[in-house]
Amino acid sequence: MKIEENLVSHLKLEKPAVIVDEQVCRANIRAMSNKAKSLKIELRPHFKTHRSRTIGNWFREEGIDKITVSSVDMAAWFANDGWNDITIAIPVNLREIDKINLLANKVKLGITVDNLYTMEYLSGSLSGNINIWIKLDDGSGRVGIPLDDIRLAVELAEIAGNNLNFAGFITHNGSSYKCTNSTEIKTLHNERTKKLCDFMRIIKDELPCKFILSAGDTPSCSLVNDFGCADEIRPGNFVFYDLMQYHMGVCSFNSIALAMALPVIGVYPGKIVVYGGAVHLSKESIEVNGNKVYGKVCRIEKNGFSEIEKEIFISSLSQEHGIIYTNIEHNLKPGDLIGVIPVHSCLTADMFDNYTSLNGSRIDACK
Amino acid sequence: MKIEENLVSHLKLEKPAVIVDEQVCRANIRAMSNKAKSLKIELRPHFKTHRSRTIGNWFREEGIDKITVSSVDMAAWFANDGWNDITIAIPVNLREIDKINLLANKVKLGITVDNLYTMEYLSGSLSGNINIWIKLDDGSGRVGIPLDDIRLAVELAEIAGNNLNFAGFITHNGSSYKCTNSTEIKTLHNERTKKLCDFMRIIKDELPCKFILSAGDTPSCSLVNDFGCADEIRPGNFVFYDLMQYHMGVCSFNSIALAMALPVIGVYPGKIVVYGGAVHLSKESIEVNGNKVYGKVCRIEKNGFSEIEKEIFISSLSQEHGIIYTNIEHNLKPGDLIGVIPVHSCLTADMFDNYTSLNGSRIDACK
Repeated sequence: MKIEENLVSHLKLEKPAVIVDEQVCRANIRAMSNKAKSLKIELRPHFKTHRSRTIGNWFREEGIDKITVSSVDMAAWFANDGWNDITIAIPVNLREIDKINLLANKVKLGITVDNLYTMEYLSGSLSGNINIWIKLDDGSGRVGIPLDDIRLAVELAEIAGNNLNFAGFITHNGSSYKCTNSTEIKTLHNERTKKLCDFMRIIKDELPCKFILSAGDTPSCSLVNDFGCADEIRPGNFVFYDLMQYHMGVCSFNSIALAMALPVIGVYPGKIVVYGGAVHLSKESIEVNGNKVYGKVCRIEKNGFSEIEKEIFISSLSQEHGIIYTNIEHNLKPGDLIGVIPVHSCLTADMFDNYTSLNGSRIDACK
Repeated sequence: MKIEENLVSHLKLEKPAVIVDEQVCRANIRAMSNKAKSLKIELRPHFKTHRSRTIGNWFREEGIDKITVSSVDMAAWFANDGWNDITIAIPVNLREIDKINLLANKVKLGITVDNLYTMEYLSGSLSGNINIWIKLDDGSGRVGIPLDDIRLAVELAEIAGNNLNFAGFITHNGSSYKCTNSTEIKTLHNERTKKLCDFMRIIKDELPCKFILSAGDTPSCSLVNDFGCADEIRPGNFVFYDLMQYHMGVCSFNSIALAMALPVIGVYPGKIVVYGGAVHLSKESIEVNGNKVYGKVCRIEKNGFSEIEKEIFISSLSQEHGIIYTNIEHNLKPGDLIGVIPVHSCLTADMFDNYTSLNGSRIDACK
């Protein structure tokens, strides 16, 4: 096969850019929203993936009215855009308590706690009516209290309930990102769900108050239809998906809504070099057939992204250069553009303070 | 041993911040400047590492008047700050030719070329008096023409000389970043230098015009005193250094001028979690004793960074969380700050549009 043309012919871009396919992005939002509605579970999508008011509006149009973010500043950014039910899903940073109090006067704000020191500190420091979420470690091992520490869960919930506004328990199955295929993801999800249900059954006997369980990551939320005793899910990456999700069997290629357009700056025997490095794609990699991969080459056309006939990848990355080793026949030359599906769209999108739509218009993102 | 206190006690920071030790940074600049002066070689430092006008001024105070950058926008940023001899050391992106022409009317601008298509395109497109550097591949294999392709080197230089302003040959020993110790770096440097000298001897017979050789990367420039036939060196990372350079034996701990201050958000048995993830540190890692490492915990005090008694590392990183596994005795609690020396200071610095000095003042950086 031969690549006969510039792989991104219709966009007049000067330098590396993130391209968003609005139609696919809206379809991803709609699919997740419809799934949540049909399962009668609340959807509180994580907005850290896109960080965009424009894309936030696409969620609004599907009826979404509550969101998740990963920082106080991001909460403030979306609060200023009219979102008024926001959960910050990272253990609270006590150094930002003043900003949190200010924000809680404006919107319904949720913060995350997983230890007594923080809970007691908050009891004496919070002025607003802030929702307190107790973080559970469902086995992923990042943050949260162990599911079998019922005593600590009860103690934290009681302090929260007495002095603050106890909303419920929150968890994130981060281990699902380490799975290699959809069967593993489903199996892991079912195991975690069972443990969470056991926890909820026990804790409900201990705590007379009303509270809910918030769970859900993109791999699981995309693949399963049974969330057990969870009342709310918080996937984020699904808005764009990416090469990692595609290779894990979480999404089809046609569901990927974000690609990069990168200028070709060098063509050599067996090698194409693009202007697009770690400061554009991020250094996140996956292994494909034993090779390290930083992105997969694709076509970007007016009507969307498409695969080229033979898989070729960015397999070496320095600060600004990306290298594609290939013996594929092509007529690419310096100044052409190629499309690249990034490994992890959240990290790639985070490098930019705006994106470009397929028709060339600008889509905002906060920085 | 026991960590008895907050590891960053004097700075009032709300969230993850890049801390620059001005004194160490200035000493690094002075040492490299003095080395270049004593060896009678030109120093054209790469400013992509710091991207800061303030830090640029510290170079000016050491007599530096020419710089290297990695993008047209970065060239424009420093041109607007009064720098008027700027080389863009990445193969030219032909899509930015209009911006390049505009900039070349204001400053002495150098661009990099390594193929006939681009050289011929530029011959018909450049309006200003732009310096053309022909990129050589000294064996690193990223970009550039092979050293043994004398015919291509001559052809490119002749087109450049006839239609444009041929400045010389430029190379970057990127392989030095793959070395594991200082002996390897020196050996590699000597091998590359010999090959470059052979190339220069041959090419000088072929080309009657005047031209120079620009070379030099931080590992080599820090460790060696003989640059062979190079007339100019372009190190960048040395301004800050980092954990990678330290572990390669390129610098001492006391020469590291950049650290991150990260809020503790969780303390668990055998584990400390900080607010500081891939969007703050970058996903660049090194191996230390067989373990993946994203940063090394340190103290940050008024007078500088210092090592803690036992080495502890960030060994797991997600988008916003960094995890330190350690059984060290400590009294750290949520809301404290810890210092972290990042693996690759260029990528960490690039995540931020400003830095903080040890006295808490702001240091600018372009985005």
